[in-house]
Amino acid sequence: MAQSYFDTHRETLEKAIQATRTREYWSPFPEAPSGKIYGEDAPAQGEAAFKAHLNGSFSLEMPGIEGEIGDERSPYGFNLGVRYPKVNIDKLLPAMEAALPTWRDAGPEVRAGVCVEILHRLNRRSFELAHAVMHTTGQAFAMAFQAGGTHAQDRGLEAVAYAYEAMTRTPAQVRWTKPQGKRDPLEMDKTFHVIPRGLALMIGVSTFPTWNGYPGMFASLATGNPVVVKPHPHTILPLAISVAVCQEVLKDAGFDPCLVSMVVDTREAPITKDLALRPEIRVIDYTGSTPFGDWLEQNCHQAQVYTEKAGVNSIVIDSTDNLKAMSQNLAFSLSLYSGQMCTAPQDIFIPRDGIQTDQGHLSFDQVAEALAEGVRKFLSDNDRATAVLGAIQSEDTVQRIERARALGKVVLDSEQREHPQFPDARVHTPLILSVDAADALLYQEELFGPIAVLVATDSTEDSIRRATALARSKGAITWSVYSTDESVLQRMENAALEGGVSLSMNLLGGVFVNQTAAYSDYHATGANPAANACLCDAAFVSNRFRVVQSRRHAA
Amino acid sequence: MAQSYFDTHRETLEKAIQATRTREYWSPFPEAPSGKIYGEDAPAQGEAAFKAHLNGSFSLEMPGIEGEIGDERSPYGFNLGVRYPKVNIDKLLPAMEAALPTWRDAGPEVRAGVCVEILHRLNRRSFELAHAVMHTTGQAFAMAFQAGGTHAQDRGLEAVAYAYEAMTRTPAQVRWTKPQGKRDPLEMDKTFHVIPRGLALMIGVSTFPTWNGYPGMFASLATGNPVVVKPHPHTILPLAISVAVCQEVLKDAGFDPCLVSMVVDTREAPITKDLALRPEIRVIDYTGSTPFGDWLEQNCHQAQVYTEKAGVNSIVIDSTDNLKAMSQNLAFSLSLYSGQMCTAPQDIFIPRDGIQTDQGHLSFDQVAEALAEGVRKFLSDNDRATAVLGAIQSEDTVQRIERARALGKVVLDSEQREHPQFPDARVHTPLILSVDAADALLYQEELFGPIAVLVATDSTEDSIRRATALARSKGAITWSVYSTDESVLQRMENAALEGGVSLSMNLLGGVFVNQTAAYSDYHATGANPAANACLCDAAFVSNRFRVVQSRRHAA
Repeated sequence: MAQSYFDTHRETLEKAIQATRTREYWSPFPEAPSGKIYGEDAPAQGEAAFKAHLNGSFSLEMPGIEGEIGDERSPYGFNLGVRYPKVNIDKLLPAMEAALPTWRDAGPEVRAGVCVEILHRLNRRSFELAHAVMHTTGQAFAMAFQAGGTHAQDRGLEAVAYAYEAMTRTPAQVRWTKPQGKRDPLEMDKTFHVIPRGLALMIGVSTFPTWNGYPGMFASLATGNPVVVKPHPHTILPLAISVAVCQEVLKDAGFDPCLVSMVVDTREAPITKDLALRPEIRVIDYTGSTPFGDWLEQNCHQAQVYTEKAGVNSIVIDSTDNLKAMSQNLAFSLSLYSGQMCTAPQDIFIPRDGIQTDQGHLSFDQVAEALAEGVRKFLSDNDRATAVLGAIQSEDTVQRIERARALGKVVLDSEQREHPQFPDARVHTPLILSVDAADALLYQEELFGPIAVLVATDSTEDSIRRATALARSKGAITWSVYSTDESVLQRMENAALEGGVSLSMNLLGGVFVNQTAAYSDYHATGANPAANACLCDAAFVSNRFRVVQSRRHAA
Repeated sequence: MAQSYFDTHRETLEKAIQATRTREYWSPFPEAPSGKIYGEDAPAQGEAAFKAHLNGSFSLEMPGIEGEIGDERSPYGFNLGVRYPKVNIDKLLPAMEAALPTWRDAGPEVRAGVCVEILHRLNRRSFELAHAVMHTTGQAFAMAFQAGGTHAQDRGLEAVAYAYEAMTRTPAQVRWTKPQGKRDPLEMDKTFHVIPRGLALMIGVSTFPTWNGYPGMFASLATGNPVVVKPHPHTILPLAISVAVCQEVLKDAGFDPCLVSMVVDTREAPITKDLALRPEIRVIDYTGSTPFGDWLEQNCHQAQVYTEKAGVNSIVIDSTDNLKAMSQNLAFSLSLYSGQMCTAPQDIFIPRDGIQTDQGHLSFDQVAEALAEGVRKFLSDNDRATAVLGAIQSEDTVQRIERARALGKVVLDSEQREHPQFPDARVHTPLILSVDAADALLYQEELFGPIAVLVATDSTEDSIRRATALARSKGAITWSVYSTDESVLQRMENAALEGGVSLSMNLLGGVFVNQTAAYSDYHATGANPAANACLCDAAFVSNRFRVVQSRRHAA
């Protein structure tokens, strides 16, 4: 069974590897939440499966279960009531270590096959996962289906592809023959074994539990490391379903299901630091706040630590030949999931003296008004607005909007909206502030959520300089630039190399700065303080395993 | 010129990449120190070039030179008297950062071409390098030519090959086309830039400055990171020559020579910690003692840190069908460079009740005597002995031999020898002790130098168990096993996976446990405390650079 998964999915895996090399568009997981693709019953079955979890006990196979835990509440305004196994890590970790050798010795092909089978089964549960992601993160349903479902599956497959390619770069065996002049050559038979580092820990984030979580989970599992999944206490269900699917496939393939296990804690009694410092944990993947990411990097010396932390993303507006399309594009980027994305733009640098556009020269205030009007129009239809905004994941973010109002001139105020299906949902439209670069430090801090800051600068050169300094000091995951001048685009691209930030230029159509495509776009660079790693590249997988060789004289 | 180096060396580079994939024997650098290969005048010219350095000023091109420094003494008993530039790092590092963008923007092909040209010029100076290595490390001449010259060049080329392959995995450009059902597809043009992390620091070791130093140096340089070479204060000249060759080729190719620079300090006023903590330093390669390696790993959070530290290497003797050949093989391994190798065996585990051999069952003491007699015979000819032993690099090692005598039963005492050419050379033969595993902790500590410990154990199972525990707690780079029983070999191989150690089985001929071959054997695994990295693999290169992308709508 284990080998047959590899045979079944070999072609998918090879196509994924090829896509990561060509960086062309490809995906085996259709992103449309459509019954035509997934089966006419799939949407209703997915919703029913989600509802069946509510107010029940979620079952996982792990040694050391001692009671239940969990108190998630949907950002749409109701308690999930799901109770998860509470596990004693002093019993769990040794059991996972005991399961390691069998998983290690199964080899790269078998492990990759199991991982891709897991991803395919997750794909078939995309509607259920979408509801689970929606009602923990606050994402709107369509986004939850894509970012939480199919795109996350893509990111997981991408990691398996890199891992498989990296592990199989070294042959399992070789006959080595070294000439010795007139004497007989030296001949050695060498065997190369891929071994995992140990146990891996994936620390989930509250907003994108699967999209940010799968790359590390699958990179670790494919390279032989049993994985402890530690979800954010407010966003457990999507990862619980994912772990259950992992366990199901592992069992079907004849492996110990506890090779992927889940440890749940609460905000009041967090366990992550204890887990992260355990000597058994040799790989850590983390997405979340900068202070905790820094702590992991600086304290968990026993582990390889991969972090995606916070940054301040910038847009530089120099000029445009399509003000309307630019405003529309930015309106979507600022509204999508209420800016609760590590890729959402925050600072928009605009020259104090205004810019050239297809509508003539516009002053700073006119540009500001055009952007505000773009958002206003885009969100004028409440049904469309809520289907893009989703709900605010954390009450902290709501309070951040309140506080931010006082920090600059309000160009567009944030307003509370009523969700058509969920009257208690926390729905808030973006707040747009303006400040002058010369007298404001506001723009230099991350303001997570639907808060954008228009920064008046001396010139486009000044804008680029400030964005670069900010990326180098605070980190950034995305940059965007608007200019009709190719030399400005070139200078911005040079600055992107200095700041180590991905750059989008003149986005007007259906591509947005806060979205990246697996296999083609890199998410984060690992080259500035926002992240020490990138999803996904060879560096993300190649140090999760080591190679041990043996050699003997040829027979 | 810069591009032509790539064209000249493209085939060499491709062959090197291929060799790292097949792991078959290959080398472009002939290892025989022969005038027939390198030119009849090469040996004499190399010696003359070495002598021309003595008692002179070594010239390098670096901003911030403020005086001279250096007081190396040959382990063969004379002062080198070479004075090196003393450089102000507050002036040097900014100059290196200023040189970075041009080197970065030259791209992977140009950088790889320059690196391979450097290695080829180093190869032509192998005799000069051999004398420089000999008279700083104490290696005998033939070994210095190989380990310090051609094999080091191999390890450098191997690193360039991995780096080039890793950097070119991502295309420079791609047109990305995503279907949108009945609508027009989304089309984006994407550009991918390889960028270095920043400045790299290579901290040299006193015993193998080039062999252990080149991999990090060339991996960093090829991936675009300017390199600060910080030699051990007792072993400067081989790296100084190497840096000079780097600078010569960089200049010829039109780059700033300070892209590879050297910072020399003294044992009394060390500068390595200051350098290693500088924010400009983003990559560190280190070979040396465990405490300093641990310090680097735990404190230099701004940098990627690759360390090769100390370990305790084990041999398990279970049985043999060729006692004589085994003893000869081990005699060479224990004698080579007086055991001053991180790959030299230290602990030899033998069952207390003795072993089966082709000469019948032998008691523990009889095996010990056979091993001692092997060393005695091998070193009976003083010329051959000194040509293998070389000289003791550090006075600390001489004192360690003295102290060790009291720690166990002396099976073979270390004796001082007179070198035929250098009467003041520190030449010492191996000390072999025996201890019982039950009442001795001696074997659990690294005893660097010509000191071997025969450890009497309950059984081969006990031997394997102790070796494994030792590898996991103290680290190990090499293991060796002798057994006529295939199931014992299999159990030792399983243990090697647990300990994360490279294993050699039943070595009898011209392959020795302390030698590894570039392109085929991995040096260290990175899977136990002896090293956090391996020479060389994809993990060693792939995190020295990052990829920054830009994208725009297709024209």
